[in-house]
Amino acid sequence: MVPLILSGGAGTRLWPVSRRAHPKPFMQLADGQSLAEKTWLRARSVAGDAPILTVTSRDYYFYTRDLYEKLGAGPDQSRFLLEPMGRNTAPAIALAALWVRDHVGPGASMLVMPADHLIRDTAAFEEAVRAAHELAGQGQLATFGMHPTHPETGFGYIRQGPAIEGTQGYQVDAFVEKPDLDTAKAYLASGDYFWNSGMFCFTAEVLLAAMAEHAPEVLAAAEVTWQATATEATPVELPAEPFSRCPSISIDYAVMENAGNAAVVPGDFGWSDIGSWKAISELYQSDDAGNRVRGKAVLVDSRGCFVQGDQRLVAAVGLEDVVIVDTGDAVLVAHRDQAQDVGQVVRQLTELEDEAAIYHQTVHRPWGSYTILEDAEDCKVKRLVVKPGQVLSLQLHHQRAEHWTVVQGTAKVRLGDEEFLLEANQSTYIPVETLHRLENPGTEDVHLIEVQTGAYFGEDDIERFEDIYGRA
Amino acid sequence: MVPLILSGGAGTRLWPVSRRAHPKPFMQLADGQSLAEKTWLRARSVAGDAPILTVTSRDYYFYTRDLYEKLGAGPDQSRFLLEPMGRNTAPAIALAALWVRDHVGPGASMLVMPADHLIRDTAAFEEAVRAAHELAGQGQLATFGMHPTHPETGFGYIRQGPAIEGTQGYQVDAFVEKPDLDTAKAYLASGDYFWNSGMFCFTAEVLLAAMAEHAPEVLAAAEVTWQATATEATPVELPAEPFSRCPSISIDYAVMENAGNAAVVPGDFGWSDIGSWKAISELYQSDDAGNRVRGKAVLVDSRGCFVQGDQRLVAAVGLEDVVIVDTGDAVLVAHRDQAQDVGQVVRQLTELEDEAAIYHQTVHRPWGSYTILEDAEDCKVKRLVVKPGQVLSLQLHHQRAEHWTVVQGTAKVRLGDEEFLLEANQSTYIPVETLHRLENPGTEDVHLIEVQTGAYFGEDDIERFEDIYGRA
Repeated sequence: MVPLILSGGAGTRLWPVSRRAHPKPFMQLADGQSLAEKTWLRARSVAGDAPILTVTSRDYYFYTRDLYEKLGAGPDQSRFLLEPMGRNTAPAIALAALWVRDHVGPGASMLVMPADHLIRDTAAFEEAVRAAHELAGQGQLATFGMHPTHPETGFGYIRQGPAIEGTQGYQVDAFVEKPDLDTAKAYLASGDYFWNSGMFCFTAEVLLAAMAEHAPEVLAAAEVTWQATATEATPVELPAEPFSRCPSISIDYAVMENAGNAAVVPGDFGWSDIGSWKAISELYQSDDAGNRVRGKAVLVDSRGCFVQGDQRLVAAVGLEDVVIVDTGDAVLVAHRDQAQDVGQVVRQLTELEDEAAIYHQTVHRPWGSYTILEDAEDCKVKRLVVKPGQVLSLQLHHQRAEHWTVVQGTAKVRLGDEEFLLEANQSTYIPVETLHRLENPGTEDVHLIEVQTGAYFGEDDIERFEDIYGRA
Repeated sequence: MVPLILSGGAGTRLWPVSRRAHPKPFMQLADGQSLAEKTWLRARSVAGDAPILTVTSRDYYFYTRDLYEKLGAGPDQSRFLLEPMGRNTAPAIALAALWVRDHVGPGASMLVMPADHLIRDTAAFEEAVRAAHELAGQGQLATFGMHPTHPETGFGYIRQGPAIEGTQGYQVDAFVEKPDLDTAKAYLASGDYFWNSGMFCFTAEVLLAAMAEHAPEVLAAAEVTWQATATEATPVELPAEPFSRCPSISIDYAVMENAGNAAVVPGDFGWSDIGSWKAISELYQSDDAGNRVRGKAVLVDSRGCFVQGDQRLVAAVGLEDVVIVDTGDAVLVAHRDQAQDVGQVVRQLTELEDEAAIYHQTVHRPWGSYTILEDAEDCKVKRLVVKPGQVLSLQLHHQRAEHWTVVQGTAKVRLGDEEFLLEANQSTYIPVETLHRLENPGTEDVHLIEVQTGAYFGEDDIERFEDIYGRA
């Protein structure tokens, strides 16, 4: 069985922690792990030594790869397909199925898992996966249906049909769209409906056959894209032309809703799509007043509140059911029952072309990350973290000079034609228009403080000459 | 008439903007001016060319003096008495009266004004001051009574007696303590009560006579302190011994409540003690939804909220009547109707020995200020602003090195035995245990970024050898 992790999507309802440049799967939860890490570990536990395939974008590739490697992924254990643009789940799954067909075999089954869902009971999950695997082997398109616990209007539902003999699954009678509240209550009361979790299990050949029948345009575009791709490498960078020809459509809509061989495996494994700050808050223990706190906070006469702090102190006075989420450059204060409306903030910021819609104060790069400490008229100050063995591009700036002070590790610096080492408590100066390159030749992270001087500090004032990450 | 400005007190209910190191009088209001500036301008307008006397502490002296100078105070126009510790208003006013007696004349009248009150209608205020001045000339201890607009329980009240013929004042029938709500409602309904504004007008000799009668201990300690003081200088630094012998007591309790010659001048000049964030918020224009915003904010489905932002973005979703105040190192979220409980946050922080109870991210010094940009294990990064003509102490650090990059202005640096100029985009390095001094010899502010390296960055790792501000 090949686990397929789908990692995309912005998670705007979890702003300001989830932003497009570093979205929901990478958010650290209560236990310090991210959803992406948890998903990879789950995949690992069902896949044994088989490779795990992740479909994501180039923007998230380096960060995701490093995350997996930290969890012990060997070079053959994780493979990537990189989409040049988002086209919803059907094209991603089609290309993954082609990959599995050609690299593992058409009869191999695939376990499709979004990277941003939480599953609390791993043992129950694995049991459900075994049941789904069996159904997949019988030519079924298996879904995982969650027993609803409340009349949720944010999910699609699955109506169950007759049991499939000798398995733990049921035929799918119908997939139904997100209901209104009254309909959701009726579904809940009837006992015949599951939440559609967006996870699937099928063999590559059965999925491709269903696509050929129900979504031939998607399959055709995926096939052309697949043929245009160098198939041996990882990551596989899917070319924008012809990938962009794929219609943007979900696997549910393109295939599952029309297929006669859809099955549903009931799952009670503590699934959550972590769709809002309310869901995040429920991962924390509450105190006697129903408050849940992460970080440094002082609460006075407040009840039912959730505080997620960062560096700064958060004080709450006389509040009830309020969510406060603080980050370096933005703070969100929302009523708990309107936590699902946080996406509207991101929409407004996007309209205002405010970068806080997309970027954090800490920006991840293939070589590490930088954090903006000061962004003023007269200077910009950053902390740069360069990972061991990583190298920034050979570059110059036309409008800014840079003053570097190393505070951890030993950096190798190229400056003009010179090259030298810079240790902690040593500094150097990069004049305007001077070719330079920063490298970490050691085995520990290098941290340095960069003070930029000049009159313009935009990220676009960078001319790259060589770049090991293909950005030159 | 000598205006006497009393500038002390923490204003903890306006945390996190007001903190002990930079309290309420220095907060910038909606119009960009601080209460201290407004008070000085008010004093100026009633004093003509007479000196204005300010009683404050050494901690606030340099900042206050600079503030007045920016408003045009000449060297003879502002005088300071610096208290070594707070002893409430009676000792401060006693010492000011002794100053007035000896430097202006015993018959001169004094107008006592707290530095942290707001008065919106200056013309009406000046008219009330003229009336109070007249009463003072007749040997009265004049107070300013505000017509109550609501049953406030946070103020003391004054019950008016018979009118004093030929003046706009009334005899004071009684001073009454802060009432409970029902009592406050009864006061409001009766029409016989004023709010006690804490402003006064009397001649030095009448005040000193009343003190001799009603608070002889306060007067005795003040007299001894006054005699121990070099009287010609400004600022006058009152010696802790014997000043500490003064009982800590308010002028109301020590004198006014017991005096037979207390008068009250009704004032309707838009007075407010700006006692909470609710009061601050009311200085801002509200939009159609009753929201008031200063700084960068996105509000979704929120009503009656007040946002005071700083550098960062504040987003509010689904809130009603919530106050959000953001600063560099702390954010306060409070229900508007519990804004008066914000002081409890400061009390909790004080118990936790959290510096956010006292200090801001920006700390004012006699020579300018510094702002902490990063405070980490491996380094501390600050922006230093040195005012023209100012000089930091000649100093060294035992545990940290410093890397300075000038980003505005030209600094003069002494490093060991050398001395040199450092211009914008130039940097230098101060090794551990090396004598150094930073100076601004120019006419514009010097800004520099300081990167401290080492393992300990406490403010106490500083050995001062020479200091023009007397801190060596």
